[in-house]
Amino acid sequence: MKNTFGTSVAITLFGESHGEYIGAVLDGLAPGISVDREYIEHMLFLRRPEGKISTPRQEKDEFKIVSGMINGKTTGTPLTILIPNENVKSGDYAELKTLARPSHADYTAQCKYHGFQDGRGGGHFSGRITAALVAAGAICKSALEQKGIFIGTHVKKCGGVSDRDFTDYKSDIASLSEKNFAVLCDEAEEKMKSRILEAASEGDSVGGILETAVIGIPEGVGEPWFDSVESMLSHMMFSIPAVKGIEFGAGFGFADMKGSVANDPFKIENGKIVTEKNDNAGINGGITNGMPIVFRTAIKPTPTIFKPQNTVDFKAMTDAVIEPKGRHDPAIVHRARVVQDAATAIVLCDMLSGRFGTDWLKGSE
Amino acid sequence: MKNTFGTSVAITLFGESHGEYIGAVLDGLAPGISVDREYIEHMLFLRRPEGKISTPRQEKDEFKIVSGMINGKTTGTPLTILIPNENVKSGDYAELKTLARPSHADYTAQCKYHGFQDGRGGGHFSGRITAALVAAGAICKSALEQKGIFIGTHVKKCGGVSDRDFTDYKSDIASLSEKNFAVLCDEAEEKMKSRILEAASEGDSVGGILETAVIGIPEGVGEPWFDSVESMLSHMMFSIPAVKGIEFGAGFGFADMKGSVANDPFKIENGKIVTEKNDNAGINGGITNGMPIVFRTAIKPTPTIFKPQNTVDFKAMTDAVIEPKGRHDPAIVHRARVVQDAATAIVLCDMLSGRFGTDWLKGSE
Amino acid sequence: MKNTFGTSVAITLFGESHGEYIGAVLDGLAPGISVDREYIEHMLFLRRPEGKISTPRQEKDEFKIVSGMINGKTTGTPLTILIPNENVKSGDYAELKTLARPSHADYTAQCKYHGFQDGRGGGHFSGRITAALVAAGAICKSALEQKGIFIGTHVKKCGGVSDRDFTDYKSDIASLSEKNFAVLCDEAEEKMKSRILEAASEGDSVGGILETAVIGIPEGVGEPWFDSVESMLSHMMFSIPAVKGIEFGAGFGFADMKGSVANDPFKIENGKIVTEKNDNAGINGGITNGMPIVFRTAIKPTPTIFKPQNTVDFKAMTDAVIEPKGRHDPAIVHRARVVQDAATAIVLCDMLSGRFGTDWLKGSE
Amino acid sequence: MKNTFGTSVAITLFGESHGEYIGAVLDGLAPGISVDREYIEHMLFLRRPEGKISTPRQEKDEFKIVSGMINGKTTGTPLTILIPNENVKSGDYAELKTLARPSHADYTAQCKYHGFQDGRGGGHFSGRITAALVAAGAICKSALEQKGIFIGTHVKKCGGVSDRDFTDYKSDIASLSEKNFAVLCDEAEEKMKSRILEAASEGDSVGGILETAVIGIPEGVGEPWFDSVESMLSHMMFSIPAVKGIEFGAGFGFADMKGSVANDPFKIENGKIVTEKNDNAGINGGITNGMPIVFRTAIKPTPTIFKPQNTVDFKAMTDAVIEPKGRHDPAIVHRARVVQDAATAIVLCDMLSGRFGTDWLKGSE
Repeated sequence: MKNTFGTSVAITLFGESHGEYIGAVLDGLAPGISVDREYIEHMLFLRRPEGKISTPRQEKDEFKIVSGMINGKTTGTPLTILIPNENVKSGDYAELKTLARPSHADYTAQCKYHGFQDGRGGGHFSGRITAALVAAGAICKSALEQKGIFIGTHVKKCGGVSDRDFTDYKSDIASLSEKNFAVLCDEAEEKMKSRILEAASEGDSVGGILETAVIGIPEGVGEPWFDSVESMLSHMMFSIPAVKGIEFGAGFGFADMKGSVANDPFKIENGKIVTEKNDNAGINGGITNGMPIVFRTAIKPTPTIFKPQNTVDFKAMTDAVIEPKGRHDPAIVHRARVVQDAATAIVLCDMLSGRFGTDWLKGSE
Repeated sequence: MKNTFGTSVAITLFGESHGEYIGAVLDGLAPGISVDREYIEHMLFLRRPEGKISTPRQEKDEFKIVSGMINGKTTGTPLTILIPNENVKSGDYAELKTLARPSHADYTAQCKYHGFQDGRGGGHFSGRITAALVAAGAICKSALEQKGIFIGTHVKKCGGVSDRDFTDYKSDIASLSEKNFAVLCDEAEEKMKSRILEAASEGDSVGGILETAVIGIPEGVGEPWFDSVESMLSHMMFSIPAVKGIEFGAGFGFADMKGSVANDPFKIENGKIVTEKNDNAGINGGITNGMPIVFRTAIKPTPTIFKPQNTVDFKAMTDAVIEPKGRHDPAIVHRARVVQDAATAIVLCDMLSGRFGTDWLKGSE
Repeated sequence: MKNTFGTSVAITLFGESHGEYIGAVLDGLAPGISVDREYIEHMLFLRRPEGKISTPRQEKDEFKIVSGMINGKTTGTPLTILIPNENVKSGDYAELKTLARPSHADYTAQCKYHGFQDGRGGGHFSGRITAALVAAGAICKSALEQKGIFIGTHVKKCGGVSDRDFTDYKSDIASLSEKNFAVLCDEAEEKMKSRILEAASEGDSVGGILETAVIGIPEGVGEPWFDSVESMLSHMMFSIPAVKGIEFGAGFGFADMKGSVANDPFKIENGKIVTEKNDNAGINGGITNGMPIVFRTAIKPTPTIFKPQNTVDFKAMTDAVIEPKGRHDPAIVHRARVVQDAATAIVLCDMLSGRFGTDWLKGSE
Repeated sequence: MKNTFGTSVAITLFGESHGEYIGAVLDGLAPGISVDREYIEHMLFLRRPEGKISTPRQEKDEFKIVSGMINGKTTGTPLTILIPNENVKSGDYAELKTLARPSHADYTAQCKYHGFQDGRGGGHFSGRITAALVAAGAICKSALEQKGIFIGTHVKKCGGVSDRDFTDYKSDIASLSEKNFAVLCDEAEEKMKSRILEAASEGDSVGGILETAVIGIPEGVGEPWFDSVESMLSHMMFSIPAVKGIEFGAGFGFADMKGSVANDPFKIENGKIVTEKNDNAGINGGITNGMPIVFRTAIKPTPTIFKPQNTVDFKAMTDAVIEPKGRHDPAIVHRARVVQDAATAIVLCDMLSGRFGTDWLKGSE
């Protein structure tokens, strides 16, 4: 349903890049969940551009929570987060720019909104909106941690450089939460950053792959048709701007496997059923089996680059050349990782609350 | 919402592998759409196992439409398709098998349904259920064709053998509709089949990749948050058993691209805005731009294989070895392609009817 | 979403009066719920026309359950009920009748379905479809009883004759389940029946009021906005053909009350919070308080009567006179009571499963 | 779905009586709809308490629109309205009051939110939240007027005094839009007001009935199952605090009618199909027939009164007596009428956009 996602726990996103506020309404969260401002601030900090490898524009993300919280805890009614956009004059008359940036939403917005869209800074399509998603997701992520469920995302690949795989999920996830640039292997960070800087120096940009792991998820969550765990997570992930692919476990690697290699044998370990390996990413038949959920998303390079590109003026209906100026990210993959964490947390809160009831995430009185 | 998907046009799936009927309710289709039995039969035929590369079990799929159609046209009210399961004694007392087949849903079904699941032949998790999805999707696909929208899926990869890419979408899609084994390059068929037979002879199975193209889709369909075209299609595709990944356009290939390569420049062609190439798969910012929608899914190898595998007895909570016998598919990728066509058609009918109104697909009186 | 209602537990209705089958898919029910065929048959029996006060047409309602049940218990996957329509030749070419019966859906169906609707016997608008709702609701009602929740509906008014109010909910509800003509006061039955016969002898019909009570519902169920208990129940009840009003507790009587009279004081009774009286029908702020839920629906007289009435031919666009012949109910209020029971049960299963988790209604293994 | 209602056009409500902001996100509105601040202000003004017959507390409702609008027109993306609560210190530690006001949501909030609810001034249950509903509905109502659809609500009954019925819908609706106290017959206003003042002087409150008419609605809108026009409107109306009943057209009056009286004969008038009278309220089989939609809601007396009442302390679990002090409305029916207008407009925008496409309400470029 458009800008609302979820059933038991739902998020509604609103706002434009240059509007007065962006924000989110998070509905259906159990009452009594602690809302930790520092936790939210930290996740917003991780989303913000950093140094030379990102846009020099700095936003402070001074969010406020204007409903659904009292005495630092959720009330159980809609929790609304507002994040002001700074240096924005909301009353300004804005003339729509009609040169479509290639692979941006400029032209499709025109097709859908017929010229009434807010085109300033990408409007409602701006990556800026993900700040609200991150703030809402931070509350969800923190609530899940109280239930022993942990989420971590690292930059698996960026600018052609690969990070190592997860080895020990628990300690790897813990280590990622401390890092500004989320890689498991420190050398990868330096190499990735130099590739990003290299692209930036050419006025170009790079893409990458994000990998997310979730541990501690109970078994028996998800539906065979149509709300499989993969379905719900992918639905959400493809809302994140720039995501163009997702794979679970061995994913596209399954294409070259035989069944005897692809299957994950079960065994009993400490009185619990586990799998010997986890190529199916903790999901069989759309339902969790208790093993870690692992997925990777493909992040396309930032479409705004500082090179001349062929395009059209969609109002004049003429061919044109566009050469953007200003400040933009030569890569967003390292910033998007915290968006992916947040988005994952929201989906899981929804699925768990639907499965086990709306009080399941509840804190103690 | 579980076994129902869609808003303007919705499908509800029901049935178990060994129940009396499997079926689908297709709701929200415009009135007056021609329902072509032969078209449906042909798609069901393409889904059925074929010769040595599939299970020798043969089902006739003698579907009947018991509501929502009169005089060969949709009425606009729920259209119900029933497909009988043959040689099934529905009253039988069935004891649940408690040896979990690795990477099957046996164990997760136990976690979710607590022993009450119908375990016979995979129950509600069986690929058999996709026959109902195919029949419903056939009606949608045929309705879309009346509006100039065509869908085609080929086996991009199977058993390590690759098919060629789409070149001319229109003629490629047309050629696929005639083929039992959907490849664009005939040599690929022979090679893939021999790999499948080879795996079969070892009691093993192979995976693959399916690639779908959609042409003729109007621009301006889809939502920035959360119901992007990618979100809706992926949500549906991950319901198809064995799908473990999806990518749109360049997909995971974007990870190694620079923006200057990844972007699709616009141009005017015959008075219409098009892109010079289509790495973004006809979707910018979650919304169609009028270019072909192209995506690939990763299909894991059939998990049922005829080799001994480690597993558990989930009732006795003991380690065990399972060595399935019987008839199974050494590959399903070539059968799943028509499921992917059907599933795509349903999603598009939903999105188009939501965008342009519930009469948009309507036939003439 | 059109012909599907509910989130955690959902029902999808399909079928036409003269189609091959009518039916329902009931999705989301917990696994392990006993499905009692006799219970369902009894509720279907109560819905069927009885003697002179109803249409002489007799349907046997030989339902079958074709999915979602094994060994007499729900599996947790979609449960599908099929009820064949007898003496129906489904392949018949059917010409649409174009004389609109006043206050029927003939004309509005034309507006919505543009001539493609199945007009035979009311098609998808027929009261016949409620048989499937009753069968599905019977399973829900029986499941609720296992949790100590009981539902009963009586004919509060019919043909100008009133039944007495509920006095002891528990015994009144129990007594209603035994009665073919559901009144609490036996004299009312005779008077109502003679009014119905009187109307029938004139070729006319009568309306009435149905009153439903629910006991044993846990407190804390429902939402302030927008899914109040009243919202959910009314949404469902207005799907029942002929319902044109609903009121909870004192309902329209509140209009003439003062707050000091309207309010229901709380008190402690046996260590539990109850109200001294129950004019608010067990619902405060949209949420249950543990007291009985009580509501009444207004049932309009059957629109098909055997008197000449002014109307139009909606194809010829001319004024006309219609004088229906055949067999019809001079009243449906006494038959609709079991539909109201069933519809109530479905809504409550949905709300309770959403609140307390999808296993809440589960039987023991 | 809890605090979100609607599919094609959806509203999400948030906020508490003493929080920093209340507000609404209105999603799915077509792009290019003029947003008239004065129109919104006027509707908010009509909702505000007036003189002696209402609470003396005055709120200014200085709303702002922080997303989804540019250059005075909707963009097509979520439109967010914020209304600050004045004189509220949002950081205050608030101890929950545990004496339950009879027929208020105090106790049910406790059952649902376990002590974490914001109890200040009714929290999320406060009638205050309807200000956001009114502001959002004002935009919808104004958009409908551009399409020739007009909505008007009058106080049909208050304190035992009745207003006259609608006679000429068009002029009656027009006259209501000008009135602070919405009655069609001026004498009724004086009588009603004196009854309200009388109740106020006793520390008591009165209830009433609101009647809404909608003209200009296209035929063919609504669904037979389960989203009938009555279902959708009632679902929404029962969200409005204090609504305990709804009836369409003759409503509960049908109970005493015969079919020959209840039916609305069709006729051709000026080349259009109309009904001779309109007891079915413009809805047959759940679908509009083009005649006015007419419905009435029962509004219970304000539960907060200044008389001692029996109740409980739900924390101490003891009987108690409550005697509220402060400022409260002796009647809300005259204020709620504009809430009913707004709520109706939102439902209709949703149903029309779903039926005719998301551009149907669009303004010209």
